[in-house]
Amino acid sequence: MRIAIAGFGTVGQGFAEVIHKKSELLSSYGPVKIVAAFDSKSYAADENGLDPVALVKNKLATGAVGDKKMKSGIDVLGSVGYDILVEVSPTDIETGGDGLRHIEYSLKHGKDVITVNKGPLALRFRELNKLAERNNAILRFEGSVGGAMPIINLCSENLKGERVKSIRGIFNGTCNFILSRMDNGLPFEQALKEAQQLGYAESDPSYDIDGIDTACKVVILANSVFRRNVKFSDVSITGISSVSPEAIALAADQEMVIRLVGEVSDTVLEVSPRLVPKGHPLSIAGTMNTAQIMTDLAGPIVIFGKGAGRMETASAILSDLIAIMDRRR
Amino acid sequence: MRIAIAGFGTVGQGFAEVIHKKSELLSSYGPVKIVAAFDSKSYAADENGLDPVALVKNKLATGAVGDKKMKSGIDVLGSVGYDILVEVSPTDIETGGDGLRHIEYSLKHGKDVITVNKGPLALRFRELNKLAERNNAILRFEGSVGGAMPIINLCSENLKGERVKSIRGIFNGTCNFILSRMDNGLPFEQALKEAQQLGYAESDPSYDIDGIDTACKVVILANSVFRRNVKFSDVSITGISSVSPEAIALAADQEMVIRLVGEVSDTVLEVSPRLVPKGHPLSIAGTMNTAQIMTDLAGPIVIFGKGAGRMETASAILSDLIAIMDRRR
Repeated sequence: MRIAIAGFGTVGQGFAEVIHKKSELLSSYGPVKIVAAFDSKSYAADENGLDPVALVKNKLATGAVGDKKMKSGIDVLGSVGYDILVEVSPTDIETGGDGLRHIEYSLKHGKDVITVNKGPLALRFRELNKLAERNNAILRFEGSVGGAMPIINLCSENLKGERVKSIRGIFNGTCNFILSRMDNGLPFEQALKEAQQLGYAESDPSYDIDGIDTACKVVILANSVFRRNVKFSDVSITGISSVSPEAIALAADQEMVIRLVGEVSDTVLEVSPRLVPKGHPLSIAGTMNTAQIMTDLAGPIVIFGKGAGRMETASAILSDLIAIMDRRR
Repeated sequence: MRIAIAGFGTVGQGFAEVIHKKSELLSSYGPVKIVAAFDSKSYAADENGLDPVALVKNKLATGAVGDKKMKSGIDVLGSVGYDILVEVSPTDIETGGDGLRHIEYSLKHGKDVITVNKGPLALRFRELNKLAERNNAILRFEGSVGGAMPIINLCSENLKGERVKSIRGIFNGTCNFILSRMDNGLPFEQALKEAQQLGYAESDPSYDIDGIDTACKVVILANSVFRRNVKFSDVSITGISSVSPEAIALAADQEMVIRLVGEVSDTVLEVSPRLVPKGHPLSIAGTMNTAQIMTDLAGPIVIFGKGAGRMETASAILSDLIAIMDRRR
């Protein structure tokens, strides 16, 4: 398998490291190599395979993926022979951005695609899936929701026989960290500052705290697990910036906490701060993600896992890679 | 797919109901029919397919699966054409019993097997897997551990790229119910009686409370997820009958509870009552099952689900059935 990596930030680098770490396991499928890697500024490409460790070292030392200057991702993809695109460039929730172009180009050319890029999935889910189908390509996206917490493939594969009635979850570790800190009496601004200092929140935190990130994930679940045809703009979204210490104290008096819950079912598509009883799976504190999956036969199934992180997100990409190689074998 | 069901108690009946309920989904794989069903006393067989609803009704009304008297399960299996054996007869942890014979016979004849029968798996895991491999048959057993909680297939499929470092879990709802009731001040005997009245515990409860059931599950996880070659007799087992109200009160003073934990890793194989901090996933109360799966890349993944029940266990069999049909397609 020849892999092209689009985007070489934390997740792209983590994935390159995983390719190195898991080389023994992967070699049981035949040669697995990275033939191209790029970000918005530079790229490296070699049909014989790039050294994943050297790629990461070079990026960390010089800030560049390779010594070739980028024109466009499509140019790079057009110039190398590859089988799978791993699309992990930054999310653009307005237009889908370069990520959408890379995915469309690859699927059109019959290449399999693994992505954790929520923009293209939240904006063009149905179209991308049709494109994949028409070109006998596989599109997988486990890491786009819940990071290392297996949920997409759990629902579509292990629970294929179930009718999933609803999914409610904590899908944004940043918001959950802030709300957990507010449980301890911190006001919102101070909890946010702490999250930023710890590297959990961006300097512009709106993508997380306004519920946009959670809404993208709700859309992806709606379209994949529930086979709905919804877009980002269909989600009813309330963020956490207006959650007051008073509301949290009032909740605590009733043995409750406030959490940013994403909910999806055949009829619901919502992101909002909600009262959750202490001890309930959704009352979890800290940066973990969780999902409560209600099914017709198995009843409730609850899963917890790390929602973000270099290795954690890369592990979700690895699980998709192995699933593709199993199917292509 | 022509299915033979060995064992027609709660789980066998539940599975027949599931075949009926999910007929639309299943029909997308071509005709799926039950061609034989039997328990230790009687059987029904029809190459054209038995009516699952009538089978269950008849069993509930008359106590008999069909009007034909049993000689042996092997005789029935030898007399009908079938593709998959669903083996759900009672567990015999001493010898493997009839269940082991049904599974061996079917695998030898190249039939796929789905079982939740822990005896044969805990006693002859390696041999049965080799037999399956030699005869190009598939052996699946999701429901044997954790009921509706997906764990076997989660580890072997979704988390195939991970190195699972350890699994610690609550795998017996009866013990967990008893210990949870003891948290509320009940002595062991009274909690056990309550579990029996609610139908959670058998009149002879030793299989549950002595840790035997949990130990079987630990063996199955060790052999499947960790690819070890262990037997039931290799497990270090302590049950819950000697857990005293004093020990529980002492634990509560330190914000802890006592739970019957099964643990398995490359070196550990243990079932014992353990102190668990309140709020920890393993501190769960009631009859739910849970497992904490420690992995190298994804970190900790925790799953909760219903560990037993007519429909819940049948749902695990359904997931194996669909996986087999996907692979055979």
